[in-house]
Amino acid sequence: MKILILNGPNLNLLGQRDKEIYGAKTLDIINRDITAEAKKLGLSVEFHQSNSEGELIDCIQKFDGDAIIINAGAYSHYSIAIADALRDYKKIKIEVHLSNIFTREEFRRHSMLSAVCDGIISGFSEKSYLLALQYLATIKPKK
Amino acid sequence: MKILILNGPNLNLLGQRDKEIYGAKTLDIINRDITAEAKKLGLSVEFHQSNSEGELIDCIQKFDGDAIIINAGAYSHYSIAIADALRDYKKIKIEVHLSNIFTREEFRRHSMLSAVCDGIISGFSEKSYLLALQYLATIKPKK
Amino acid sequence: MKILILNGPNLNLLGQRDKEIYGAKTLDIINRDITAEAKKLGLSVEFHQSNSEGELIDCIQKFDGDAIIINAGAYSHYSIAIADALRDYKKIKIEVHLSNIFTREEFRRHSMLSAVCDGIISGFSEKSYLLALQYLATIKPKK
Amino acid sequence: MKILILNGPNLNLLGQRDKEIYGAKTLDIINRDITAEAKKLGLSVEFHQSNSEGELIDCIQKFDGDAIIINAGAYSHYSIAIADALRDYKKIKIEVHLSNIFTREEFRRHSMLSAVCDGIISGFSEKSYLLALQYLATIKPKK
Amino acid sequence: MKILILNGPNLNLLGQRDKEIYGAKTLDIINRDITAEAKKLGLSVEFHQSNSEGELIDCIQKFDGDAIIINAGAYSHYSIAIADALRDYKKIKIEVHLSNIFTREEFRRHSMLSAVCDGIISGFSEKSYLLALQYLATIKPKK
Amino acid sequence: MKILILNGPNLNLLGQRDKEIYGAKTLDIINRDITAEAKKLGLSVEFHQSNSEGELIDCIQKFDGDAIIINAGAYSHYSIAIADALRDYKKIKIEVHLSNIFTREEFRRHSMLSAVCDGIISGFSEKSYLLALQYLATIKPKK
Amino acid sequence: MKILILNGPNLNLLGQRDKEIYGAKTLDIINRDITAEAKKLGLSVEFHQSNSEGELIDCIQKFDGDAIIINAGAYSHYSIAIADALRDYKKIKIEVHLSNIFTREEFRRHSMLSAVCDGIISGFSEKSYLLALQYLATIKPKK
Amino acid sequence: MKILILNGPNLNLLGQRDKEIYGAKTLDIINRDITAEAKKLGLSVEFHQSNSEGELIDCIQKFDGDAIIINAGAYSHYSIAIADALRDYKKIKIEVHLSNIFTREEFRRHSMLSAVCDGIISGFSEKSYLLALQYLATIKPKK
Amino acid sequence: MKILILNGPNLNLLGQRDKEIYGAKTLDIINRDITAEAKKLGLSVEFHQSNSEGELIDCIQKFDGDAIIINAGAYSHYSIAIADALRDYKKIKIEVHLSNIFTREEFRRHSMLSAVCDGIISGFSEKSYLLALQYLATIKPKK
Amino acid sequence: MKILILNGPNLNLLGQRDKEIYGAKTLDIINRDITAEAKKLGLSVEFHQSNSEGELIDCIQKFDGDAIIINAGAYSHYSIAIADALRDYKKIKIEVHLSNIFTREEFRRHSMLSAVCDGIISGFSEKSYLLALQYLATIKPKK
Amino acid sequence: MKILILNGPNLNLLGQRDKEIYGAKTLDIINRDITAEAKKLGLSVEFHQSNSEGELIDCIQKFDGDAIIINAGAYSHYSIAIADALRDYKKIKIEVHLSNIFTREEFRRHSMLSAVCDGIISGFSEKSYLLALQYLATIKPKK
Amino acid sequence: MKILILNGPNLNLLGQRDKEIYGAKTLDIINRDITAEAKKLGLSVEFHQSNSEGELIDCIQKFDGDAIIINAGAYSHYSIAIADALRDYKKIKIEVHLSNIFTREEFRRHSMLSAVCDGIISGFSEKSYLLALQYLATIKPKK
Repeated sequence: MKILILNGPNLNLLGQRDKEIYGAKTLDIINRDITAEAKKLGLSVEFHQSNSEGELIDCIQKFDGDAIIINAGAYSHYSIAIADALRDYKKIKIEVHLSNIFTREEFRRHSMLSAVCDGIISGFSEKSYLLALQYLATIKPKK
Repeated sequence: MKILILNGPNLNLLGQRDKEIYGAKTLDIINRDITAEAKKLGLSVEFHQSNSEGELIDCIQKFDGDAIIINAGAYSHYSIAIADALRDYKKIKIEVHLSNIFTREEFRRHSMLSAVCDGIISGFSEKSYLLALQYLATIKPKK
Repeated sequence: MKILILNGPNLNLLGQRDKEIYGAKTLDIINRDITAEAKKLGLSVEFHQSNSEGELIDCIQKFDGDAIIINAGAYSHYSIAIADALRDYKKIKIEVHLSNIFTREEFRRHSMLSAVCDGIISGFSEKSYLLALQYLATIKPKK
Repeated sequence: MKILILNGPNLNLLGQRDKEIYGAKTLDIINRDITAEAKKLGLSVEFHQSNSEGELIDCIQKFDGDAIIINAGAYSHYSIAIADALRDYKKIKIEVHLSNIFTREEFRRHSMLSAVCDGIISGFSEKSYLLALQYLATIKPKK
Repeated sequence: MKILILNGPNLNLLGQRDKEIYGAKTLDIINRDITAEAKKLGLSVEFHQSNSEGELIDCIQKFDGDAIIINAGAYSHYSIAIADALRDYKKIKIEVHLSNIFTREEFRRHSMLSAVCDGIISGFSEKSYLLALQYLATIKPKK
Repeated sequence: MKILILNGPNLNLLGQRDKEIYGAKTLDIINRDITAEAKKLGLSVEFHQSNSEGELIDCIQKFDGDAIIINAGAYSHYSIAIADALRDYKKIKIEVHLSNIFTREEFRRHSMLSAVCDGIISGFSEKSYLLALQYLATIKPKK
Repeated sequence: MKILILNGPNLNLLGQRDKEIYGAKTLDIINRDITAEAKKLGLSVEFHQSNSEGELIDCIQKFDGDAIIINAGAYSHYSIAIADALRDYKKIKIEVHLSNIFTREEFRRHSMLSAVCDGIISGFSEKSYLLALQYLATIKPKK
Repeated sequence: MKILILNGPNLNLLGQRDKEIYGAKTLDIINRDITAEAKKLGLSVEFHQSNSEGELIDCIQKFDGDAIIINAGAYSHYSIAIADALRDYKKIKIEVHLSNIFTREEFRRHSMLSAVCDGIISGFSEKSYLLALQYLATIKPKK
Repeated sequence: MKILILNGPNLNLLGQRDKEIYGAKTLDIINRDITAEAKKLGLSVEFHQSNSEGELIDCIQKFDGDAIIINAGAYSHYSIAIADALRDYKKIKIEVHLSNIFTREEFRRHSMLSAVCDGIISGFSEKSYLLALQYLATIKPKK
Repeated sequence: MKILILNGPNLNLLGQRDKEIYGAKTLDIINRDITAEAKKLGLSVEFHQSNSEGELIDCIQKFDGDAIIINAGAYSHYSIAIADALRDYKKIKIEVHLSNIFTREEFRRHSMLSAVCDGIISGFSEKSYLLALQYLATIKPKK
Repeated sequence: MKILILNGPNLNLLGQRDKEIYGAKTLDIINRDITAEAKKLGLSVEFHQSNSEGELIDCIQKFDGDAIIINAGAYSHYSIAIADALRDYKKIKIEVHLSNIFTREEFRRHSMLSAVCDGIISGFSEKSYLLALQYLATIKPKK
Repeated sequence: MKILILNGPNLNLLGQRDKEIYGAKTLDIINRDITAEAKKLGLSVEFHQSNSEGELIDCIQKFDGDAIIINAGAYSHYSIAIADALRDYKKIKIEVHLSNIFTREEFRRHSMLSAVCDGIISGFSEKSYLLALQYLATIKPKK
């Protein structure tokens, strides 16, 4: 099972961003944790981060694996274009967030992506990604 | 680590309810799966289901364990009273849903509980509960 | 044909409540009228009233007859939990109100239950129940 | 007791319109059913259908009988002018709908007429008209 | 003059709940203070607390004294059913809150009960109850 | 100066309609008062009333005089079509109402016509028409 | 009949303000026209203008004549305090505006005062005042 | 292929109406252009214009050809009744507007008809009709 | 303990205003009652009433005592400026209303001042002031 | 006449996307059809597609031809930046959509671009582009 | 160049007000800084502060200099009357705020004055005034 | 002190864009003015403009100087992603606009960036940038 871990704007600065909200780990360290967990679960992962909405869409379109785990950061809240790209991707899609977005500013409590993903995991810091992996390890890929 | 699995109204009828949305498993079967997973993870679980808002609150108030995994069903969307009970419970709280609530009717896309829980897991059918357990197995109880 | 007449909060006080709105008959007298009409129409009726949302849900879940006539009183306007219980009940459901709810306070002009019932009858005082019975007498039970 | 059955726009096409929503009977057949029921109940009925808002108002103004049963179709949702005509008519007024309007598009879930009618019956197909008649058979005309 | 002091959900945990908002006194201690003040003022008080909406309604319906002082906690903000029970109770009704609800979350700044009570006292911690008593000591019961 | 007095739906029933709101005079008597006042002021008036939105539009389109005084009744609140007809009429247009529409139901406090008329006079019973005439007597026709 | 002509903020600058909206006449000239018309109609008028909300209220409270013609300018749109003063004044009250407020900015299309006045005249430039006088000349003072 | 060109209120005055918005051509001239284009494309057209909502509905109901091109003018923005008539017409329906309605007043930017038509063409002056014809010339009639 | 009793617009007319809402006592009589109660409680009171928003602010700014009891009348509902003055006053502030503002017009059910006061007492006629005093008698002044 | 055909996000995947909504043709095939039609009409076309908002803006800015036909896909609904780029482009601009956007999700029924384009054509599948070309063939370029 | 520095309600208490928001300087010290800067820039300044809306309007009306720098404090958010006074003043107008109003309570994030001023400077503490002066020093007075 | 001047979409076309709104100067000329002013004030400036949201974020993330002056053009109104990038940048941030955005279309009157910047300067054409520089010249860099 081949999985894309896709991160959106400003997530490349994890570890420097407000640590009370996003935690102290850098994206590199989180990705290393994800790689380790994936190996343990027998899953193959690849990573992409971009600040550009268009590049995130390109990435989704080009990916031919079995599942996407996406944390689209701020784009979650208004990018109909990324939502459309996810809708066109017919395999498994899981939306994750490091923080619990429902405890934050009003505009951050709604995600355009939730309705086109299979499920949403929000508020478990970097473990949100790991839980998504653990779910994927229990199911069969869509054909 | 002692965990309460708390289910709200109409969840006692799982397996008979709309199966495309909620899946075919009964609550008993789901609870058996949860017990098995908990044993594997070295966690202790207890279960309660009620159709009564007041009884759910009583239950939260009386529980003295380390974490609550709650699927409050329809009450999620308007019960400030349950939200208050959860707010007063100072240990770990995880909101789960079988279906992805963000793909459903407008009034079901907002939960009053999300803002007082540590995290939310929605859309993975009965595995939503299991993922919550898996998260709990990785952390230390709050004191 | 077996029918449940289900009444919600404060309807046990009919006859004492604001008589210009709800009429002067007590619930007992109304129930006697309903029983008489049902007998005439060859229908079997049973009655339940509760001030408790949870008990109303329990009642719907346990009922195994052919139709429910429900006047959920104030819960009509916000109880998604009762609406869910009705949605899960797959036979005939009719919402009734003594008063014409559309002539009253803004918050009383919308019922969460209407969308999950087969039909709604509002504004004919206790005759709202009788009209519901008369309708049921003309149709075949759902299987 | 003399009763006007008033039907609004597009109801002349019943039987051809979306049958899942409006049923398969034509307006003529429904009117024949109504006539039969009225005869049985000792009530006198007359019928009018129009696609024109103004003609519906004219009709209400000219009617000098004891009750109006009105299905104003799409005009229900925005015609303050028909609502005013009904308000000026001081006898009994019952709003009926074939479909349960509360299960349909957002704009169809509110009727301008409900607040000026004595009661509303919605969702019982052509039997909505018959129930209205049955109610009228049990009461005395207003003077 | 016989007075019911009625407390809603989560108020049984006073003293443990967020003390900056609700104060450090337990409900027992507050009730003792109320009893003492009532005795001083020549008033008779009885107490009830429940987490259940239905039980609070039952309580209001059964009470045959001269006044109700109610702190319905979270139910204040959405229970039309409790508001209806209070509307049907024709003697004096006073809504109290420990905290100033107008300084808190948006959803807590509106109470469904205010419009059916004689007056509202909010923000004086346990003294809100005492002020209500002091008011009652100055007036005659309604008949 | 040639003036059209145009009255909309249900105004043909003045004198029978709710007299506390609309006054006791019939439209004929009001028109006689208007004719008398017009004669006194040296103005020529003609009258039209219709319950039909389309006929009111036809009427505005065909009129070739100097000013229109319009009381469009209920159509005032939603007829963009009448508003468009008035906008296309390039002479003087005055909106009048018998009652003060701003003291009435929410939906009656806004008129679609006000923004395309020169002025509005509301709340002076039949004198609203006379004041409009008096204004017209003081100005020159637009060319 | 003694009448107060009350003008609110910025109306002292008429003649200098945007002449396309408010006309070219100064307040003095308008007042002279009003005085002349009043004399002709046998009415007694007095004038007051203030930029201060409190002073306008004082003025209404102290006036002991038969009618107030008020153009409260910008205060019309938000001063509940002036509306309350007018509500407490139990004689005749007419709201006037020079411009047609319904053709202007969104926030200017609603007046807090309309609901407490007998009628409203808007859009006839300084003749709005004269029409109000003409109405007053036809009626008897309230006692 | 037989096509109905249906025009709503005030469109009979094209050429006299605000020419910057609607263009200088009269409806007759536009219809002549349409006839010429239809002939060129081998299509048969018939025309109807009415200021009456009811007549427009009658017209749609009676038409038995292959497609309707409708410019319902102001009725586009609120006539659920015309939308219902179009919904009941099961062949091809195209909504056209002379002006670009999305550049105009807020209330003109939404059409009730768009959701029941196959497509919408807005902003190309009289060529909106011609483009609709050109589309129809490329497709086969629905059966 | 030195206390300012501050009354806003139109409250100088108490006794003449709508007595069903505000009671029959004049402000002078109420102030006498307050003085008597204060004396009994060992508190010192001073009084100010103004119809001017600016003067009420001046008054709050200049006051150097221990508590303000304010009934800002209509200004309660929109004066951010008075709210700011109260926020800047760092001692105790109690908002009172004679009537229960939550039973009145929509615009009167929200007070801008509530969020900056310690508590609110509404609906006990002139006793609202006395209850505020009684509260102050039980606490120590803030320093 | 030189025309830019500009396509936004996810339109590169036409033919693979939900075919019931977008049709079965790939973008290449549609572009070939457009090229053929343009040749027939004597127009010159060039094509650009991008998933990137910024690149679409660059493209509009750099284009020096006579008209832009734009289908901005999901960006239509929120990109004020693309709307600004189109506003700055002073030649002809036509907005097209394959599907009828007014039959789809609420958030897709409004386009930020419509108000800055000359016209909009929506719902004719790939023929929406061809109709735009046909319009351009009948007019002269703006200078 | 003659400039009026106009300050609204509660700004006379600067230095005592919440210093984290407004800074520690008193209005006198700020005015001294402004005077010094003005002298340096060759500009003449005069100062006025008032808690009264009416007095601020009087002040604007009487000023005959070249520019107004206004910090209307809380009145910024609702005073249409001050906005009108500024609109009538035809020279240069700059709105300033000490704090960044867009980081504060919802009701403080919108200013009625912004749309009638030339520009707005918010968030630079007392330097907001100085920047406004610096701008004025670079331009020529309007005539 | 090292400062980044960051310009968003379409600002590269200044001088060609609507000159009544944005002025006649090109971005190059404005940048030259800024460079001159910075030199005079002893500040170091660098410039970047992009039509791409992602590139603007990259730019903010990479900048290691003391302050950012940003005019994000249309992105100001919806880019939560840019706002997040600014929030993560912990030094000084000033939002500037050439035009007074509060006088423009409704959707342009709110900026997502204002709440994360230190201050906002809007409406002084290119001088908005210069005022921001002048402010920076008076303060010390944050560490």
